[in-house]
Amino acid sequence: MLFITKSVEFSASHRLYNPEWDFQKNQEVYDKCNNPNGHGHNYVLEVTVKGKPNPDTGYVIDLKKLKDILVKKVLIHLDHKHLNVDVDFLKGVIPTVENISVLIWDIVKPHITDGELYKLKLYETPNSWVEYYGEPVEIKRFGNEQ
Amino acid sequence: MLFITKSVEFSASHRLYNPEWDFQKNQEVYDKCNNPNGHGHNYVLEVTVKGKPNPDTGYVIDLKKLKDILVKKVLIHLDHKHLNVDVDFLKGVIPTVENISVLIWDIVKPHITDGELYKLKLYETPNSWVEYYGEPVEIKRFGNEQ
Amino acid sequence: MLFITKSVEFSASHRLYNPEWDFQKNQEVYDKCNNPNGHGHNYVLEVTVKGKPNPDTGYVIDLKKLKDILVKKVLIHLDHKHLNVDVDFLKGVIPTVENISVLIWDIVKPHITDGELYKLKLYETPNSWVEYYGEPVEIKRFGNEQ
Amino acid sequence: MLFITKSVEFSASHRLYNPEWDFQKNQEVYDKCNNPNGHGHNYVLEVTVKGKPNPDTGYVIDLKKLKDILVKKVLIHLDHKHLNVDVDFLKGVIPTVENISVLIWDIVKPHITDGELYKLKLYETPNSWVEYYGEPVEIKRFGNEQ
Amino acid sequence: MLFITKSVEFSASHRLYNPEWDFQKNQEVYDKCNNPNGHGHNYVLEVTVKGKPNPDTGYVIDLKKLKDILVKKVLIHLDHKHLNVDVDFLKGVIPTVENISVLIWDIVKPHITDGELYKLKLYETPNSWVEYYGEPVEIKRFGNEQ
Amino acid sequence: MLFITKSVEFSASHRLYNPEWDFQKNQEVYDKCNNPNGHGHNYVLEVTVKGKPNPDTGYVIDLKKLKDILVKKVLIHLDHKHLNVDVDFLKGVIPTVENISVLIWDIVKPHITDGELYKLKLYETPNSWVEYYGEPVEIKRFGNEQ
Repeated sequence: MLFITKSVEFSASHRLYNPEWDFQKNQEVYDKCNNPNGHGHNYVLEVTVKGKPNPDTGYVIDLKKLKDILVKKVLIHLDHKHLNVDVDFLKGVIPTVENISVLIWDIVKPHITDGELYKLKLYETPNSWVEYYGEPVEIKRFGNEQ
Repeated sequence: MLFITKSVEFSASHRLYNPEWDFQKNQEVYDKCNNPNGHGHNYVLEVTVKGKPNPDTGYVIDLKKLKDILVKKVLIHLDHKHLNVDVDFLKGVIPTVENISVLIWDIVKPHITDGELYKLKLYETPNSWVEYYGEPVEIKRFGNEQ
Repeated sequence: MLFITKSVEFSASHRLYNPEWDFQKNQEVYDKCNNPNGHGHNYVLEVTVKGKPNPDTGYVIDLKKLKDILVKKVLIHLDHKHLNVDVDFLKGVIPTVENISVLIWDIVKPHITDGELYKLKLYETPNSWVEYYGEPVEIKRFGNEQ
Repeated sequence: MLFITKSVEFSASHRLYNPEWDFQKNQEVYDKCNNPNGHGHNYVLEVTVKGKPNPDTGYVIDLKKLKDILVKKVLIHLDHKHLNVDVDFLKGVIPTVENISVLIWDIVKPHITDGELYKLKLYETPNSWVEYYGEPVEIKRFGNEQ
Repeated sequence: MLFITKSVEFSASHRLYNPEWDFQKNQEVYDKCNNPNGHGHNYVLEVTVKGKPNPDTGYVIDLKKLKDILVKKVLIHLDHKHLNVDVDFLKGVIPTVENISVLIWDIVKPHITDGELYKLKLYETPNSWVEYYGEPVEIKRFGNEQ
Repeated sequence: MLFITKSVEFSASHRLYNPEWDFQKNQEVYDKCNNPNGHGHNYVLEVTVKGKPNPDTGYVIDLKKLKDILVKKVLIHLDHKHLNVDVDFLKGVIPTVENISVLIWDIVKPHITDGELYKLKLYETPNSWVEYYGEPVEIKRFGNEQ
């Protein structure tokens, strides 16, 4: 087995807060990430596919195709957007880097037909990131998004 | 003369649009940067001070002091903020990386008392940045901020 | 399960030598790393915590808390220090990047109460690093530190 | 167990094409990577060795020795070469980053006598890379190299 | 005045040799860069435009437009190409990073109509690069390209 | 004119203190950089040479030669050394990044015979660096080095 990765970027804004808590409680938990008008990041998304190289092409997956999937199925929804309000698949979800990763997985997964989606790595800053391998995780979806 | 630089980071959101133009015109000029709910970046700010090293310290400027100035006078206003609405010194200004740089200069300048402020470099993404040396530049301040 | 990581930095000096060997033998094994007056590095420490995101916060662990643990429990002992002589938990230990990693693990481990410490990655230079997952490793502690 | 890694670089050119296919088919599969005169990359090769640190040295493997192996056994064949025509161990192989990784493994493996070769990571660009752990993979060797 | 920069990348191969010299002389001067089948790099091109921000847009130049110019006028000729044989504007030129920079300048210059082309920076590797500000430089064009 | 740069690295330790001051005063000025046993960094040194490319080679200066000069004349003295005590040309000098830069200039300058030494850039950390263009600077040399 080999693991091949493509890295792409998007720029987005978000606010971290739990709509069931008051401002004070949100401030204690999220501090400056709870700024009501939001803040933003240059996210880096690394997508890893696992598989055997096709002997005729030498490719596990054509990275041009993988990038195309990421652009058309993921980045189009996230790049230059406000993650709390502009993104259907994040509606009502607290857009932590953990939750975003889990929900990107569900979008990318069915499109990987050469090899198998193995891992997502999502950087919120160069010093903070999540890795996710697809194990089911409960994500709470609140009725009241921002 | 030597030139010494400190690099710091902040995460912020913004929207690029000219309030005197309609949505269509803003869309033509700013495209996805005109997303009404904004988007964001991890900005990197590099501040360069020019001077001779003090023979007794070997320092042009103590970088701990320079960082302290940047944290207390600049980052406190910009980090985890929405640049269009949360920042007094950007009120009514289109928060392009060019305009932000010029206005940060005016804030930092009077606090540099060892050596002289020489240059600001502001990265909006790892692939896009501005350098500014303090030459006066006209920045339009619109009456109607977002 | 998700894996979330925080990266921090410290600058330190060290000398690699085995006090039971003569200078010649140390020179053969450690070469320039055996320079008697030491040398130094900008270390980068990446700490990964494994867990499920708390549905109410969307956090596996609050990265502000994780960073706070790293600053107060690890960096305070290592940053701007000589690893052979200034650091209690490294006394008598040859401060290779392997040994330092194992001993940082023991310090960080009990403080991770949201999720579970999963991995440490310690860069000595941008081109050399260790990854450690907590499997017990014998570290020799010499009676005669530098 | 610890995992220690050394990173090295080489610059090489290659062309991706399957000699059993006509130009049109190669163009469909490899697009611009099929440019007949080739193109090139600055490759980064990260080699990870797994083992326990030797209590007397604190080393899993001496990274100077590991680098020496990589320079003398791998880089000498690949650096500043055309991978399709200049490299014996790649003769007749489509030099995708997948295939190159697998064949570098076979060369490095027997030389690692302290610890055990655990992983190769090969970057073709800063945004595209492969990870390989030595699981046997079929690599097709065509009779007709470029 | 402000200076705004866009960074783009291309992957190409080349061979350094002077066709008026024999192989031995070329080997002495260019060493492994003279490999007859060529080698390659991931080049990074940073293009800096100097100007005042337009008060109505806050832009010196729209970086989307600048990138578009670079893609359509420069990268289309260089990306995934062999610089000695595939590129009209480099025909007969020894494709050192110096010479390539000077000739890219001539191509980009007339297309910059907002602000003024100020500087090109071209990385051949992360450790080697050229900066060029447009001062006329003699580039020898040999009758006999590879 | 073109400006061509080579980047190299060295790892060293140092202590910042003025031997004419008591410990308390040094602590106030240098804080943790005054740790008596020193601390260290991975320094990055970028050396820029200015000149016209030789029409016969396309080189301003052969970067292999430039690197060779840096290794043999600079790095041999600084890499894996304690800058306060192991380095003749720094004896009695407070080894701030400013002072080191100025004194490296004097060593490199006479060896650059193709083109002209234009600039040194010395990183102490990825977030702190000095640029120096050779303008004479007074460096105090204390009689009493560590």
